[in-house]
Amino acid sequence: MAMSKLSAAGRYDPLHMAEFDPSTHPHRRFNPLIKEYVLVSPHRTKRPWLGQLEPPQATTLPKYDPACYLCPGNSRTSGQKQPVYENTHSFENDFAAVLPVAPEAPTPLHPLMTVEPVHGACDVIIFHPRHDLTMSRLQPKEIEQVIEEWIRIYVMRGTQEGIKYVQLFENKGAMMGCSNPHPHGQSWAHSFVPTIPAQELRSLKQYALTGSQVSEAPKGPGDRPCLLCEYAHAEVKVAKDEGRVVVSNNHWVALVPWWATWPFEILLLPYRRHIAALDELEEEEKQAFAEILSKVTRRYDNLFSCSFAYSMGIHQRPVPVPKGSTHPVDDEKQFAHLHLHFDPPLLRSATVRKFLVGYELMGEAQRDLTPEQAAARLRDLNEVHYLENLQE
Amino acid sequence: MAMSKLSAAGRYDPLHMAEFDPSTHPHRRFNPLIKEYVLVSPHRTKRPWLGQLEPPQATTLPKYDPACYLCPGNSRTSGQKQPVYENTHSFENDFAAVLPVAPEAPTPLHPLMTVEPVHGACDVIIFHPRHDLTMSRLQPKEIEQVIEEWIRIYVMRGTQEGIKYVQLFENKGAMMGCSNPHPHGQSWAHSFVPTIPAQELRSLKQYALTGSQVSEAPKGPGDRPCLLCEYAHAEVKVAKDEGRVVVSNNHWVALVPWWATWPFEILLLPYRRHIAALDELEEEEKQAFAEILSKVTRRYDNLFSCSFAYSMGIHQRPVPVPKGSTHPVDDEKQFAHLHLHFDPPLLRSATVRKFLVGYELMGEAQRDLTPEQAAARLRDLNEVHYLENLQE
Ligand SMILES: [Zn+2]
Ligand SMILES: [Zn+2]
Repeated sequence: MAMSKLSAAGRYDPLHMAEFDPSTHPHRRFNPLIKEYVLVSPHRTKRPWLGQLEPPQATTLPKYDPACYLCPGNSRTSGQKQPVYENTHSFENDFAAVLPVAPEAPTPLHPLMTVEPVHGACDVIIFHPRHDLTMSRLQPKEIEQVIEEWIRIYVMRGTQEGIKYVQLFENKGAMMGCSNPHPHGQSWAHSFVPTIPAQELRSLKQYALTGSQVSEAPKGPGDRPCLLCEYAHAEVKVAKDEGRVVVSNNHWVALVPWWATWPFEILLLPYRRHIAALDELEEEEKQAFAEILSKVTRRYDNLFSCSFAYSMGIHQRPVPVPKGSTHPVDDEKQFAHLHLHFDPPLLRSATVRKFLVGYELMGEAQRDLTPEQAAARLRDLNEVHYLENLQE
Repeated sequence: MAMSKLSAAGRYDPLHMAEFDPSTHPHRRFNPLIKEYVLVSPHRTKRPWLGQLEPPQATTLPKYDPACYLCPGNSRTSGQKQPVYENTHSFENDFAAVLPVAPEAPTPLHPLMTVEPVHGACDVIIFHPRHDLTMSRLQPKEIEQVIEEWIRIYVMRGTQEGIKYVQLFENKGAMMGCSNPHPHGQSWAHSFVPTIPAQELRSLKQYALTGSQVSEAPKGPGDRPCLLCEYAHAEVKVAKDEGRVVVSNNHWVALVPWWATWPFEILLLPYRRHIAALDELEEEEKQAFAEILSKVTRRYDNLFSCSFAYSMGIHQRPVPVPKGSTHPVDDEKQFAHLHLHFDPPLLRSATVRKFLVGYELMGEAQRDLTPEQAAARLRDLNEVHYLENLQE
């Protein structure tokens, strides 16, 4: 063994004191979807207060709240009434962030001060008539109705004139600025592809054109490699009790991504074939989707025995393939691979949150708990909801 | 007037109903520093609850807190004691996010799962011995001591072996995850340039090499245009009671940037000449810096009559110019232009905050209040701190 190797192994060189261990040594990981890094400081999790748990909270929400503008038959802010709906139900948002018409763009004051008028429409998707049942407490059959409604809105809005992008998302919990606990999500459809999915699409396209296929993963359009098919395939091959996979079934995998920034962030995606958007899902894939959504949200609630707060967003083909056309292989939008991001703020208990501040706003994302440690915690949880356990 | 012009003016075409008005119509603005957009929805500020104010809070903090690990003479978590310091005082952070040594990088599991070991050091900078005095309550002469300490740390850490970047920042307020109100900031110095300043440097370099000089603004190194010199110059030329400038003096300007994402975000920068970093400031520029820091933080506290929460970060040349060398014109780090970001979460009162969730995590940044409206609010405020007014 040469001296230089001895030194690299760290026995004599104080700058190389040990073999690299991602659960101990500070490091950065690269997020290939948005081309940003996250700084991981795992040694800080050794602080004494880690893992502190709050006692389970009993839910106190009524099944129907006369003051809730989302409950069946109640009045909205606009004065209009909700119908007495019995399944998933949608309506156009009374406080839309974008409006149906936009005037022409003015001449910019300065090349560094440009303005781009936008137009579009915003919808609210109520998951279920019951005021107190979040996705974690719905049956997979009921979640299938939510999936069908997401598909309906994606196709309805995504085929309207001038609409270039549909963002489906859910804000759950007061911690995420959502003041109404009635289970609901939103859709913002508009005349541009926003910053984050636009960057993801560029990365997916770049990977398809220049990336390497190192595995037996499914391929994307034009028989080209797909970043997310390739990544998911690599993750499901890791031994079940190691790595970052939380739960999987025949079609979908939920994992804490290698580059996660939120403590218990999850990336949920289909991994058996390249699927660009919700409207391409087969019946069996939809059922498996509902099933894994149920499992992920139950595990989340069980983690700190609370109704777990998160923002969830669906990234996919910006708008559906136009009707009547076969999937055009050379359509760069088709490089999109359907996936869901769950970004939860909770860190150590139902009441301790991670703050996105200081270094993270000025430098880059930072985390202490490693994605592997977070995945292990989520993997070890029961899939029966803690409230069902309490009731027995 | 041609029909098409009539139509563009919006009298007959429902898609072009009015002239574009940035205080009414939804639009996107481009942030040329980080190459991201912000969606502005000004029509939503017409909701009835806008501008609601909380009554002034009297401060209840002691001048000295025996339980505070930052107060003079008290014990730190590590057991070490703070000296009985009388001015600004720094010490190495007991819970550093990076450590002084890093082992070699291992072979990645997969090309999409790379790891980059990092090393560095973290410091805490206590602004003042008084537990209860934030920057808004310090005298400019006392703030000058903080500036000198920032310069000292920037030079000390930035010239250590292997250090490629020094991030100075402050988290102020429990809302920003800062549990200790004793006025203090932090420095994280490490072996890489983090994501956000790296993107800013790329943008500044690109502008220097390909951007246009449309004004009489100062120029950057090599007599090339500087994005921030150019932008600041354009803003200070806007009439005083319009636009986005909050306060300015002979050397510095504080403005709500055209592309601001936080409701009352401020960009503070020198505009009379291209200055890459803190250690290039002349005495007069330092005094003017202290003076404008005082004015900005007083206005912030006066906005909602509270100790205003924010994250502040200093972006500049990643590390100082090496000693003995003249500024190398072809050094791309020199394209940096010193500036401070203030990112405050408060939206409508001392208790109502903006949440960075949902669409913002999944799509792009979004705001309702326009930067011009925010700047007008901040411009109209008194520069005498509200607590001094209360005491009279
Ligand atoms: Zn995505
Ligand atoms: Zn900056």
